[in-house]
Amino acid sequence: MSAEPFLPTPSTAPRFGVWLIGARGSVATTAIAGCAAVAAGLHPATGMVTETAPFTSCGLPSLSSLVFGGHDTLDCPLPKRAEHLAAGGVLPHGLPSAVHAELVAADREIRPGGPLPGAPAPTQEALIDAFASDIRDFVRRQDLAGAVVVNVASTEPAPTDDSLPPSSLYAAAALRAGCPYVNFTPSTGLHHPALAALAESSGLPYAGRDGKTGQTLLRSVLGPMFLQRALAVRAWSGTNLLGGGDGAALADPAAAAAKNAGKERVLVDTLGAAPEGEVHIDDVPALGDWKTAWDHIAFDGFLGARMVLQTTWQGCDSALAAPLVLDLARLAVRAHEKGLSGPLGELGFYFKDPVGSGPSSLAEQYAELRGFAGRLRDDGGVGDDASGAAERGTGR
Amino acid sequence: MSAEPFLPTPSTAPRFGVWLIGARGSVATTAIAGCAAVAAGLHPATGMVTETAPFTSCGLPSLSSLVFGGHDTLDCPLPKRAEHLAAGGVLPHGLPSAVHAELVAADREIRPGGPLPGAPAPTQEALIDAFASDIRDFVRRQDLAGAVVVNVASTEPAPTDDSLPPSSLYAAAALRAGCPYVNFTPSTGLHHPALAALAESSGLPYAGRDGKTGQTLLRSVLGPMFLQRALAVRAWSGTNLLGGGDGAALADPAAAAAKNAGKERVLVDTLGAAPEGEVHIDDVPALGDWKTAWDHIAFDGFLGARMVLQTTWQGCDSALAAPLVLDLARLAVRAHEKGLSGPLGELGFYFKDPVGSGPSSLAEQYAELRGFAGRLRDDGGVGDDASGAAERGTGR
Amino acid sequence: MSAEPFLPTPSTAPRFGVWLIGARGSVATTAIAGCAAVAAGLHPATGMVTETAPFTSCGLPSLSSLVFGGHDTLDCPLPKRAEHLAAGGVLPHGLPSAVHAELVAADREIRPGGPLPGAPAPTQEALIDAFASDIRDFVRRQDLAGAVVVNVASTEPAPTDDSLPPSSLYAAAALRAGCPYVNFTPSTGLHHPALAALAESSGLPYAGRDGKTGQTLLRSVLGPMFLQRALAVRAWSGTNLLGGGDGAALADPAAAAAKNAGKERVLVDTLGAAPEGEVHIDDVPALGDWKTAWDHIAFDGFLGARMVLQTTWQGCDSALAAPLVLDLARLAVRAHEKGLSGPLGELGFYFKDPVGSGPSSLAEQYAELRGFAGRLRDDGGVGDDASGAAERGTGR
Amino acid sequence: MSAEPFLPTPSTAPRFGVWLIGARGSVATTAIAGCAAVAAGLHPATGMVTETAPFTSCGLPSLSSLVFGGHDTLDCPLPKRAEHLAAGGVLPHGLPSAVHAELVAADREIRPGGPLPGAPAPTQEALIDAFASDIRDFVRRQDLAGAVVVNVASTEPAPTDDSLPPSSLYAAAALRAGCPYVNFTPSTGLHHPALAALAESSGLPYAGRDGKTGQTLLRSVLGPMFLQRALAVRAWSGTNLLGGGDGAALADPAAAAAKNAGKERVLVDTLGAAPEGEVHIDDVPALGDWKTAWDHIAFDGFLGARMVLQTTWQGCDSALAAPLVLDLARLAVRAHEKGLSGPLGELGFYFKDPVGSGPSSLAEQYAELRGFAGRLRDDGGVGDDASGAAERGTGR
Repeated sequence: MSAEPFLPTPSTAPRFGVWLIGARGSVATTAIAGCAAVAAGLHPATGMVTETAPFTSCGLPSLSSLVFGGHDTLDCPLPKRAEHLAAGGVLPHGLPSAVHAELVAADREIRPGGPLPGAPAPTQEALIDAFASDIRDFVRRQDLAGAVVVNVASTEPAPTDDSLPPSSLYAAAALRAGCPYVNFTPSTGLHHPALAALAESSGLPYAGRDGKTGQTLLRSVLGPMFLQRALAVRAWSGTNLLGGGDGAALADPAAAAAKNAGKERVLVDTLGAAPEGEVHIDDVPALGDWKTAWDHIAFDGFLGARMVLQTTWQGCDSALAAPLVLDLARLAVRAHEKGLSGPLGELGFYFKDPVGSGPSSLAEQYAELRGFAGRLRDDGGVGDDASGAAERGTGR
Repeated sequence: MSAEPFLPTPSTAPRFGVWLIGARGSVATTAIAGCAAVAAGLHPATGMVTETAPFTSCGLPSLSSLVFGGHDTLDCPLPKRAEHLAAGGVLPHGLPSAVHAELVAADREIRPGGPLPGAPAPTQEALIDAFASDIRDFVRRQDLAGAVVVNVASTEPAPTDDSLPPSSLYAAAALRAGCPYVNFTPSTGLHHPALAALAESSGLPYAGRDGKTGQTLLRSVLGPMFLQRALAVRAWSGTNLLGGGDGAALADPAAAAAKNAGKERVLVDTLGAAPEGEVHIDDVPALGDWKTAWDHIAFDGFLGARMVLQTTWQGCDSALAAPLVLDLARLAVRAHEKGLSGPLGELGFYFKDPVGSGPSSLAEQYAELRGFAGRLRDDGGVGDDASGAAERGTGR
Repeated sequence: MSAEPFLPTPSTAPRFGVWLIGARGSVATTAIAGCAAVAAGLHPATGMVTETAPFTSCGLPSLSSLVFGGHDTLDCPLPKRAEHLAAGGVLPHGLPSAVHAELVAADREIRPGGPLPGAPAPTQEALIDAFASDIRDFVRRQDLAGAVVVNVASTEPAPTDDSLPPSSLYAAAALRAGCPYVNFTPSTGLHHPALAALAESSGLPYAGRDGKTGQTLLRSVLGPMFLQRALAVRAWSGTNLLGGGDGAALADPAAAAAKNAGKERVLVDTLGAAPEGEVHIDDVPALGDWKTAWDHIAFDGFLGARMVLQTTWQGCDSALAAPLVLDLARLAVRAHEKGLSGPLGELGFYFKDPVGSGPSSLAEQYAELRGFAGRLRDDGGVGDDASGAAERGTGR
Repeated sequence: MSAEPFLPTPSTAPRFGVWLIGARGSVATTAIAGCAAVAAGLHPATGMVTETAPFTSCGLPSLSSLVFGGHDTLDCPLPKRAEHLAAGGVLPHGLPSAVHAELVAADREIRPGGPLPGAPAPTQEALIDAFASDIRDFVRRQDLAGAVVVNVASTEPAPTDDSLPPSSLYAAAALRAGCPYVNFTPSTGLHHPALAALAESSGLPYAGRDGKTGQTLLRSVLGPMFLQRALAVRAWSGTNLLGGGDGAALADPAAAAAKNAGKERVLVDTLGAAPEGEVHIDDVPALGDWKTAWDHIAFDGFLGARMVLQTTWQGCDSALAAPLVLDLARLAVRAHEKGLSGPLGELGFYFKDPVGSGPSSLAEQYAELRGFAGRLRDDGGVGDDASGAAERGTGR
């Protein structure tokens, strides 16, 4: 596979960078390996919304035009990480060797991030500068037509003071390097008051936060169902069991709190008020990269009849997240190309806790996403307007 | 409660009839008792979509303006039936006595239906005439401004020859009596080729069929979720456990076949093709009026990762159906008043196997229903058109 | 019912007291009402193990010979409490009035417990004395042949210092009054080091603790199944949703900790080591007296194949507990009569965290219980031995 | 692995044959590959009861002493079949190559079975003779100290006439070849009236039928729980989803009927009468070798409180069955060696529909199995008796 490139992209075709914060994690590895596999025709594009009909003429960068790099403090090389994922059933057996060349290429573009051990502690400002340089170097070295920064690192604890948490340093670096930013995690990222002015003035589009991959995805279709049928939800309880790095990270109550805030938002937004019930996130290493989410919804029907819906969702977190990461990278790159800026509220379809004030029901979010696809077309509404003034904000 | 009428309707306020086929069944009894209870302010209108905000200015008949009657071959009086339902937990304890007067009044308006025992077997034509007379007498006797016929009888076996099954005789009688018709069951009703011309020429609106109360309701929100997320559904299996009359009726394979056709339609319409998997309907008398539906959905994610969603829905069938029956009766009465005719495709929100060719996703069906609500307003789109031509058909 | 006593017990037949700590709670009310209902033949003895064949000749006191009283700090009268339970579906409608006389009689024998408000704070010793007097007065006033004290009060937080928690004061009072003691809750009761000598020297039998009514009951049959089949349990996770007083009490983390200790013990005892996984207890008031327990068990099969068992248990806590409370009261009364003393390890069948060192599998516990039944017979093993020395301890 | 035998068995150590009917199916392939893997120390013996402590001194043949062969009408070689199973996640990746030599060796000992195509149709008698010759040749060629025949072929339809179905021909051949016989399937096997005399006179031990691997295993611990707790089971409903060959075979209603008879027996035997409820077996090819069983148990508690237990079992059928097949082969070989004959009722632990009249609760069956282990010891009860009379029947 590496001897003969599977898609002989002419040297003149533009290529786009996807810079991943947490580039050696399960989600990043799955996204990089999967992008190569789908581009090579080894697998269908299951789970990638941007490969469905409504997105065919939106001018999105092709999968084969994406070039991966990123920051990570781990040093397990991507090919080895991919082997681990294949052993755990996340990646198909044989895939790591089939896309070995692409994994090696991406691995070469991963920078350590964080302050260097042994060196004097840099200021936050210096760290942002260093990260932004890494990104700019990547764009220059690879001769890219553009790049997007996507945070797929482990959830960090909710910050307790005013200093910028790491996710915010990387977010600031993205803007400083002139790149759109997507926060796929519940970490702070651009959601920090100290970054508000920078985000506003950057003229760059950004999206987030916290990818909606399982329990919350379900809630965003079930909540509206109860509402539309005028059924009274009394209590909505949930338990998530997950292994892998995510489970361990979320065993930290502060990290879990960040995650749960997003999970609860969908119910409050949909139902008008939070019903009774709690959400638990348990670290269960035996489950590996698989997660199970159980929801128990007690609701009242006509004349107070007590009813119950239970759901059990068993999925592979990385396989759920990776295609959405590729979707978002392509959409953000294209939005930037079309001159859009500010919070991309129309991408609420992808997030537990979306920027902007869009709808919380998945069906309405999907309608918004399709409208957004229209704006990305070269013949589409906003893009046609050369003035560029109105469309630079999504006007939410 | 009976001594002092709960809502002193002035004698001049118009009243509307709801003629129920299967008027002494669980669904009918719950609808009649519940209508009285909600009108009297004893219970909130949980489960009634027409009592939510989007329907406030649609000119729907008030709950206190509804007058009930119907056909049934059973002779257990409604007050006694209501006591049985209260003992089984379907109706709140105390409700049967609180609305005793209304149950007695409705019971007085129930006619036996079917050929009289001992009499010579009448022709189908004579039966239709007799049923239509019963309905017309009801309207005249009660001095009603209009009436709707709603089929809530037990599911009948799919017909095997050309003769009209009972549900079709009652449907024809509804039209002959000048009443809109709603088929809340999977039985044939107006779906018979021999009735097509009559339905067309009657100038009456009609809706159906098979109320969407549980498993199919869920499928109509989960199917679109998988589709919108580009996840590949491999198999969708389901088992329904239900007691009560419905369980016994559906233990007849022919009746179950009629029911299952509707259940499968939502998946085919949503997903484009029927996935693997079967649907079972089991009669479990121990469950009484409660039903449990288990669904198991095997789907593929990115790179073929195998995932599973399971749902368990535990509900009271009558309590799920009754508010929808009241919704449909009000909507059909009002549609008639507004001069609408033909199949009301915008009511697909309520049905497993809707007439017309509307969308199959609940969210889109809800949007259509809200659009329909707009058409019912006196200041609404269609109603504004004085020509009256356009609004006579729903134009599906 | 009250006019004509349902079972005209001759005045000479011995009667036995059941003194309930928490006598106005849901479990106590259900036990008292249910005992009367079953004794009167209004309901079968579902859930009462002592009414099954192996216990017919054990000399257990008849249900109609039981006289109820107890301590409670609440003052809602039993008949009213029973009405609440009937409204919530825990007791059958009509039962509170059918056994009204018995509820009134028991209510008359309930004493406030705890220090009197306004009075100077008594010493622990004085409280124990006062409680013991209440019990002795009950026995004398009712002319009882014996009495047992059963703790069914809300779970108290695990004690943090050396002072006796309330449950231990009541336990000490039971012994001081010469009564066997059963702790149906996870509270400390006799499990306090300061009471060890008293328990030993009292010559009274006692049993506990924490009635095994749902999730742990299941675990005590599923755990052995995995063990006997040599399947490797990797993780056992559980979530309990419960309303009612128990849910509120267990929302206190200290109380939940006491409860969870028992729940985990069965897994450790059965499987040899605690698998991964947590147990959550959520207070969900909307569920009323009903509880739902979800368990997720990840296990390995041959060659490491990963498999999962999930269970969902939906039960009414009071209805699960009450028949076991009646069982235990009868068994303890009879054990005392037969001269048994010390911890009744053979009653592990009933408890999450049994006294003694018996088996943890339900099947083995049931075998022990049947053996115990044999010892209670007048012609039985131990009882035959007039020396009385050996049988005064259960020899565990 | 093949170059250096993993366990250098001295040539003098006795070896034992395991002749599998359906030797190229999933269960057989997993058993053969797994036996080699566990013998070589590549995997722990998870799921093998005979590798647990109570069986250490029973004189069972070691795993490395087992030699495999069998009949199958398929001609896909075992190494290739193993690769398929590894691709489907049933066997660990890498295992087929690690045990390649053993798979090739076993494959060489597989005979076609059935009448040869093109040859004149043989009589049943001739077929039995031919099969018996195949088995005897295997024993002679491999110089085995004994052999057992185990039926792991696809379930055959329940026979409709008096002629012997294929499973009975193979069973008769086993006896004719002097081998103990184990029927791991619900097919007829030795359960045919025409074979009763042969079975009796053969002096050989036999066991069956229908391995208890999932839903029925659970039922055999849950049923006794309800019984022991005096809870009244009202309805027990179940749905099984399975792909693979088993799903396809059981899509034949006649085969499913054979299977279901066994599944229901455990409930009737445990609970005294069959509760309401049905059992469905659905063929869902998308599930591959994995199966899901959902059970819904409606039961009454004290005073008729309605409660529900639901279980969902997700397992790999071959991985559940294979270790039990190895267990049974070893136990039957040893039983034969010890001179036991007739139906081995003490092996009910392994079967849905066990021969003999043993207990139906798993716990009691396990106790019987341990007792049986004792009889297999050289110092054990039966074996001590040199007369040999008593131990020739299991005395059930």
